[in-house]
Amino acid sequence: MAPHPFRTLDVEETRVARDVILSLHSDVVVDFREIYLQEPEKAKMKAYLDLEHSSTPGQSPNGKRPPRLAKCQYDIIGLDKIPEYHESIVDVELKKRVSHEVVSKDKQASLTLWEFQILIEACKKSEMFQKAMAELKLPEGFELVVEPWPYGGLDLGAENRRYFQGLCFAQDTRSGNADSNFYAYPLPIIPIMDAHKREIVRIDRLATGGKGDSLTGKTHSERIIDHCQTSEYVPELVELRKDLKPINITQPEGTSFKVTDESLIEWQKWRFRVSFNPREGAVLHDVHYDCRSIIYRLSFSEMTVPYADPRPPFHRKQAFDFGDGGAGNCANNLSLGCDCLGVIKYFDGVVVGSDGIPQTHPNVICLHEQDNGIGWKHTNWRTGRAVVTRNRELVVQFIITLANYEYVFAYIFRQNGDLTVEVRATGIVSVVNIDPGKISDYGNVVSGGVLAQNHQHIFCVRVDPAIDGHKNTVMYEESHAAPWDRATNPNGNFYEVRKTTVNRSGGLDAAPQHNRVFKIINSSKRNLVSGNPVAYKFTPPPTQKLLAAPGSIQAQRALFANHHVWVTKYKDNELYAAGRFTLQSQQEVDGVHDMAKRNDGVVDEDIVIWNSFGLTHNPRVEDWPVMPVDIFHVNFRPADFFTANPAIDVPSGKNNSSVLVGKDCCKTEQKL
Amino acid sequence: MAPHPFRTLDVEETRVARDVILSLHSDVVVDFREIYLQEPEKAKMKAYLDLEHSSTPGQSPNGKRPPRLAKCQYDIIGLDKIPEYHESIVDVELKKRVSHEVVSKDKQASLTLWEFQILIEACKKSEMFQKAMAELKLPEGFELVVEPWPYGGLDLGAENRRYFQGLCFAQDTRSGNADSNFYAYPLPIIPIMDAHKREIVRIDRLATGGKGDSLTGKTHSERIIDHCQTSEYVPELVELRKDLKPINITQPEGTSFKVTDESLIEWQKWRFRVSFNPREGAVLHDVHYDCRSIIYRLSFSEMTVPYADPRPPFHRKQAFDFGDGGAGNCANNLSLGCDCLGVIKYFDGVVVGSDGIPQTHPNVICLHEQDNGIGWKHTNWRTGRAVVTRNRELVVQFIITLANYEYVFAYIFRQNGDLTVEVRATGIVSVVNIDPGKISDYGNVVSGGVLAQNHQHIFCVRVDPAIDGHKNTVMYEESHAAPWDRATNPNGNFYEVRKTTVNRSGGLDAAPQHNRVFKIINSSKRNLVSGNPVAYKFTPPPTQKLLAAPGSIQAQRALFANHHVWVTKYKDNELYAAGRFTLQSQQEVDGVHDMAKRNDGVVDEDIVIWNSFGLTHNPRVEDWPVMPVDIFHVNFRPADFFTANPAIDVPSGKNNSSVLVGKDCCKTEQKL
Repeated sequence: MAPHPFRTLDVEETRVARDVILSLHSDVVVDFREIYLQEPEKAKMKAYLDLEHSSTPGQSPNGKRPPRLAKCQYDIIGLDKIPEYHESIVDVELKKRVSHEVVSKDKQASLTLWEFQILIEACKKSEMFQKAMAELKLPEGFELVVEPWPYGGLDLGAENRRYFQGLCFAQDTRSGNADSNFYAYPLPIIPIMDAHKREIVRIDRLATGGKGDSLTGKTHSERIIDHCQTSEYVPELVELRKDLKPINITQPEGTSFKVTDESLIEWQKWRFRVSFNPREGAVLHDVHYDCRSIIYRLSFSEMTVPYADPRPPFHRKQAFDFGDGGAGNCANNLSLGCDCLGVIKYFDGVVVGSDGIPQTHPNVICLHEQDNGIGWKHTNWRTGRAVVTRNRELVVQFIITLANYEYVFAYIFRQNGDLTVEVRATGIVSVVNIDPGKISDYGNVVSGGVLAQNHQHIFCVRVDPAIDGHKNTVMYEESHAAPWDRATNPNGNFYEVRKTTVNRSGGLDAAPQHNRVFKIINSSKRNLVSGNPVAYKFTPPPTQKLLAAPGSIQAQRALFANHHVWVTKYKDNELYAAGRFTLQSQQEVDGVHDMAKRNDGVVDEDIVIWNSFGLTHNPRVEDWPVMPVDIFHVNFRPADFFTANPAIDVPSGKNNSSVLVGKDCCKTEQKL
Repeated sequence: MAPHPFRTLDVEETRVARDVILSLHSDVVVDFREIYLQEPEKAKMKAYLDLEHSSTPGQSPNGKRPPRLAKCQYDIIGLDKIPEYHESIVDVELKKRVSHEVVSKDKQASLTLWEFQILIEACKKSEMFQKAMAELKLPEGFELVVEPWPYGGLDLGAENRRYFQGLCFAQDTRSGNADSNFYAYPLPIIPIMDAHKREIVRIDRLATGGKGDSLTGKTHSERIIDHCQTSEYVPELVELRKDLKPINITQPEGTSFKVTDESLIEWQKWRFRVSFNPREGAVLHDVHYDCRSIIYRLSFSEMTVPYADPRPPFHRKQAFDFGDGGAGNCANNLSLGCDCLGVIKYFDGVVVGSDGIPQTHPNVICLHEQDNGIGWKHTNWRTGRAVVTRNRELVVQFIITLANYEYVFAYIFRQNGDLTVEVRATGIVSVVNIDPGKISDYGNVVSGGVLAQNHQHIFCVRVDPAIDGHKNTVMYEESHAAPWDRATNPNGNFYEVRKTTVNRSGGLDAAPQHNRVFKIINSSKRNLVSGNPVAYKFTPPPTQKLLAAPGSIQAQRALFANHHVWVTKYKDNELYAAGRFTLQSQQEVDGVHDMAKRNDGVVDEDIVIWNSFGLTHNPRVEDWPVMPVDIFHVNFRPADFFTANPAIDVPSGKNNSSVLVGKDCCKTEQKL
């Protein structure tokens, strides 16, 4: 059977695409970056899905099947010149290239992880860097660790060459443990590499002062980490608590979900596809409940993490973790019994090396069910009869590591029709060296000599809705106090619900003071009970927007963070909130801000909704050495989409494995 | 061993208190309302706790033990006159009354559940009511159900007698199922009872019109529920889904918590007491982590649910579920395997009947552990070593039923020092009859003939902190964009963290646009790492405040809902956000608004923090017939209270009961 059009490209398809590209560029050296599924044009896909949803299960409407396309990203390496970055699209069934673009030199391709390795080698080879390191006296047993980072926003006027920066730390090697936490020993230099030359071209010196010190002056002694302290987190280096007893989660009858063709997931009336790509990680497609369409595509589109320390060059600490390096590329190989409990289904991705040879990227997505407390309950106090159901959830999760930080991304489905997007921020906060005894306005001292700099995380979720079809409209509803009025509000208790339709593409904000709720409606379809148009709604988290000064490089390259909600008209390939190229960008180009600027009509159109939310993170000491998860939710809920609570049919049976606590509280007493 | 001063009064102590009261009022009839623990004065309790915390475990500092006091609430019934409401405090060890108050007649005591029964009987006896019912033609097999409610805010100028109102519904008895959902058949009359006369004194007629209809006119036909539809939720009347497989949660080694003396809970470095009273339900006391004090007392203090339908008499639909009837009184008897899973410890309460005879109120609190996903994670990408811990939680939960609605209240402890207050709103939305085919500005039609009225839920949590001691201060921190400036902010990426101390008691608001975070600090104790004062912080949910017009009865009686955060100076017995007496109140008296008005100095003082938050609930069709939980959290987190992440010592071992999904996804394949 032919793969479903939304299914992740497999190893064989990827290899075909590679071979086609190599055959077309047989006279030059090709360095691959990525090869992954180019999703079908929506017009073709709609025709296919219409047939699929109306046809017999198991039978594909192959007559309408869009071609299987691979997006191939690669450098053409010439002698002594800057590599040319190409993007080609290959039809892997016809083994034929269908499009080809030589990307303009003012754009930087997303980085690959092997570019990080080049930086580390360049540091080793660089005399300039070795000299700078020699100025710092490390205690015996400490060794340099270079942590490669994207270069951040290119300063205005700077030549647009490809750079990487290395944050430097020292690792205590005396324990012999390769996972001893080197972030506890930050060094105040940043080597800058020209990626094409593969050479360190500059060493940035970091100020280590505190309150009252200048932004640039050198204040540290050469004994640069003598005041720093060990801060371990790997269990063999920590004294662990001993009183935690296991909680086991078992599913003796198996799961309630079913996975077909490694892409189709069916669970509790939900039906959707999942795919994985190097930029966005896990993406959901064609989400239905009870055979009714809700979402065409759902993804984490972008995030930016700007740092607020004004001392140069810290303004260039600003990562775009999806556009710069690829969330999918940085996805963890998930582990049974650690990243989730119960009965787990893992999905693999495919990655290519610079030679284009595809490899399985194992366990990049996990799928599992979980119990989230009470789902609904009512007790009839007359009869004493309580009916209580559990809130079962299905979780599609992936986790990424970006140098020091990690993010746990999840799509959570519920029986009641809710679909929640969750982000958990964890990992190690980014730190720099601060002189002994000093404190700073730019962050918090979280360990001896270690300043955790203030920063923000701003995420953007892209929702391509299909509420009972593709022609949708966004409106927002607010609740407003009403004037006390003899005729209309005689007792002053009335409040008015105001509805506003979003007519043109643009950006909008959260307004919790008015209980502003956004509804994605299908105006052509009315709820049979209420008469309202069928809808899904969400309340954008009213989190703080980007704080960098308007016009600054940090702000200009993250215009998507200027509004909580954007509504744009759908166009194929418009997937990325901060634009297609973020690495070293000085400005968001073709991001959601530009899409919105078209001022398209968005009433009863194929629309896309973007939700930006985040966290202003002024670190606590408790965020050190690894921060406890900070959890964010955006909940999409049916609002007059169904004709009743869709979870009303969830069985309310007792779970018979629960037991009463025993007398000593550590043994169980009685099985029910 | 003598009971701990915070322990809930037991049956025997309660009986002693009753007997003392009866002996003091031997010449009259005494109708009891409540008998429960009068908590010790804080000054005495501090002295006791200081000794307790410094003494040998298991040994009570009995020399300083405050007296065991019982608060007794009762009516003295005379012939032909309005009962007098008394409150006495009895020392149950000395068997002696230590204070006595005859409450002024302009206050109404909280209702008791047996007053509801009186209303139902009064309706049966009332000719006026029977006549009104006879005007409504119910289909064969339908029977009247009267749902007693508090009367709401007394209209201005109305005589302050004690009233109850009955919302009326019809139940389809043809199925023979006593739990058939009668809310699906609302009737447009409300009988009003004078509680002292035990007589129906008035029938309020309800408008049933829609958009454009007048606020008061009668528009309905006598066939009042012919257009209503069955809306069942009890499982035997619903066609249940069949594809849900069980998730079992087992703790083969027992729990990680320990309960001593039915009040002291120790878990994962946390140590606190729990008690239960008829007004507030479960209350936490003397909360410590790692032997350091954090909170003296934590409680759900009050909530109000005002309805926004302007048609009289709906302005009197405004419940104060703690002050009017008592959250503890309405607590469910919790059930193993339904209300929580795993190994469960239940706590009982004590209730008295009108004869004062105490009875155990079983299983009013449940205590259990749960897994909440990843707690923290970091992967060293160089070595590939991932360290991941689970986010174990301890939950103290109680659930209340208030006529149609339920609330699940929980205190959630985490290993990382977080303490979260959670509310889940569920149950059946309050509905009224609406004419066939009409829609309304006052709510949403959720079933044929059934209008769910718009309303708000505003909760208030009371935090009596003791951050490393009782002298605490509140400050709030905001993050502000900074001007682009060559000297201080040369690249525009800096933002400023502003700190403001709350000097005087008063009300403050959430400000998410500035990332406003409230910190409860102990200014006399500095964090050894950061140098900041030790603190716990919280971000008040920026939910919509009360919408009723300022000066209206609804608004006046819930002044606590005018601000998200209140800071007041501690005084004994100031526990209730909307004041001691809410039933039929026209004004919040001695509530948090009055406490704040004292303009007390609150720097380095014994202070109390109140957090009001809630939900503007404009019902969805999906909220019918029982609404899926709507979940609210307020998270109290350490902020430079500890010298590192206190959960860094949580073991990161694999859970060995997790398994891979099998090929058919319904059987498990392989045990790791």
